[in-house]
Amino acid sequence: MDLVTVDDVRDAAADLTGVVVRTPLLPCGWDDRLWVKPESLQPVGSFKLRGATHAVARLDPAQRARGVVTHSSGNHGQALAYAARSHGVPCTVVIPEGAPEIKVERVRALGAEIRMVAPAQRLPVAEQIAAEQGRTLIPPFDDRRIIAGQGTVGLELVEDLPDVDVVLVPVGGGGLASGVATAVKALRPATRVIGVEPEYAADARDSLAAGELVVWEPELTYRTSADGLRTHLSALTFAHLWKRLDGIVTVTEAEIAAATAQLVGQTRLVVEPSGAVATAARLFRGADLPAGRTVAVVSGGNVDPAVLAAAVTGGTEPA
Amino acid sequence: MDLVTVDDVRDAAADLTGVVVRTPLLPCGWDDRLWVKPESLQPVGSFKLRGATHAVARLDPAQRARGVVTHSSGNHGQALAYAARSHGVPCTVVIPEGAPEIKVERVRALGAEIRMVAPAQRLPVAEQIAAEQGRTLIPPFDDRRIIAGQGTVGLELVEDLPDVDVVLVPVGGGGLASGVATAVKALRPATRVIGVEPEYAADARDSLAAGELVVWEPELTYRTSADGLRTHLSALTFAHLWKRLDGIVTVTEAEIAAATAQLVGQTRLVVEPSGAVATAARLFRGADLPAGRTVAVVSGGNVDPAVLAAAVTGGTEPA
Repeated sequence: MDLVTVDDVRDAAADLTGVVVRTPLLPCGWDDRLWVKPESLQPVGSFKLRGATHAVARLDPAQRARGVVTHSSGNHGQALAYAARSHGVPCTVVIPEGAPEIKVERVRALGAEIRMVAPAQRLPVAEQIAAEQGRTLIPPFDDRRIIAGQGTVGLELVEDLPDVDVVLVPVGGGGLASGVATAVKALRPATRVIGVEPEYAADARDSLAAGELVVWEPELTYRTSADGLRTHLSALTFAHLWKRLDGIVTVTEAEIAAATAQLVGQTRLVVEPSGAVATAARLFRGADLPAGRTVAVVSGGNVDPAVLAAAVTGGTEPA
Repeated sequence: MDLVTVDDVRDAAADLTGVVVRTPLLPCGWDDRLWVKPESLQPVGSFKLRGATHAVARLDPAQRARGVVTHSSGNHGQALAYAARSHGVPCTVVIPEGAPEIKVERVRALGAEIRMVAPAQRLPVAEQIAAEQGRTLIPPFDDRRIIAGQGTVGLELVEDLPDVDVVLVPVGGGGLASGVATAVKALRPATRVIGVEPEYAADARDSLAAGELVVWEPELTYRTSADGLRTHLSALTFAHLWKRLDGIVTVTEAEIAAATAQLVGQTRLVVEPSGAVATAARLFRGADLPAGRTVAVVSGGNVDPAVLAAAVTGGTEPA
């Protein structure tokens, strides 16, 4: 299988100007050797805007005119809608029934057409729209363009901290981790790139241990508050992580909540639980991690206000 | 009176690398013509680090060895302690009794020596320490170095949005507004730089209307939640604002709270009430402001967790 290269990531970087925010590295505020990469500050609140913007930018004129389609209940749908609007490209987002109304509203506010379907119909309906209307399907992570776009996070963090020793990156579908590992290991092979998962969605850990793709049942992964990380790897992202990731660790729900509170209180970032897992690894898995100057990728900030309020006042998150 | 020049601001900018974060401009998320400059993301959580870092960087070797001193119950004390530690310079912060313990702890954690004094003794004790120990007094705003350092916010925002039409900047002691107006009006004279104050601390508005320094009684300014903006101007900052500011508007407490909630929910920033006033002006004083591409400076993010929780859940701020 052909893997994405650092040159693919560099090509993607050229497409981001004017749409994607060039996020800085921030000292975390409590650990002199930990910086965070705050992708929560992107428009629509997550790194997903990078891959989506690159994918839309590379459409040819005929594809642009026909538009794009995806299926997502979360950050990728918003990201594609935003990227498409930025380029004047029509966009349809297929959303599973039961998705929070606030997320549906946000996609609608970005000008995308919405199709509500039964959860199992997400992919078939998106494929049908692509076939019938000629729209280009832009999947959330199982796609070389998306991996290359997310990899720009890795280019930027090495540019800002050239002597980085360790990069901690959340793993859901694996697009972000694949891209970041691709960029960082190419630019600085000695840097260790470590994936982080919730212990309730540790399919990537199991896959890497088994040497083949392992899929967890959805009813298991739904136990984690880190809703952005419930997805399992694809064959494509597994191949990248197998080749390029230096290790993987898991964190508990309590550790994710504690890291969220630290990032809000000490780094002054609004983060979602998925966005806090890499920081949680540094806080609570230090013994399992290489030492040194570390960057934790804070992947997103789309958090329910009640969860945020509970985190900052030290309360318990709602079930 | 000699005013700070844009060249002074450029000199200050050269001192910031490695200590101060080069903050990006962020699209606010609800208004296509509004960007925010998130100084809440600085280490210690406010723009104050810029002026403090410049002031410390320009000490000569003998001054460095003898150290620095200031008086502050808030963000400037933390900023100077951080800047001094970064340069290996001893630091004393004179803190008025009654300051929140959390703020005292933060200054102590940054390695500064602390002197607790009766509030009226702040300045005399700081001056005494400067005289007796040879420490250099670095005041919070009434100082050309501090104004030049804060002005780097203006340099950066024009660099990132060269066709900016309007800059909204909070006014407390006036150091930030003086510096930003100095930089922006020099680089782009057509851009309008507008100060923003809480209506409960509108001494700068009154001063500019009167053409001379007007001071409000502390018991009046203590009514605003924007604790960073209760201070009045000095002769030096008044002179800068008189010459360079294009206007000034005020916002109410309810408007500050609403802007805080917008910045948390839509821009994913943790902000303090003082940090939200410029955004509140855009939200609620649009009729009084010039139209066009606007930047609101979000000056800081050191907010009480209970106030933050109330803001994000739509509750009332504690009295």
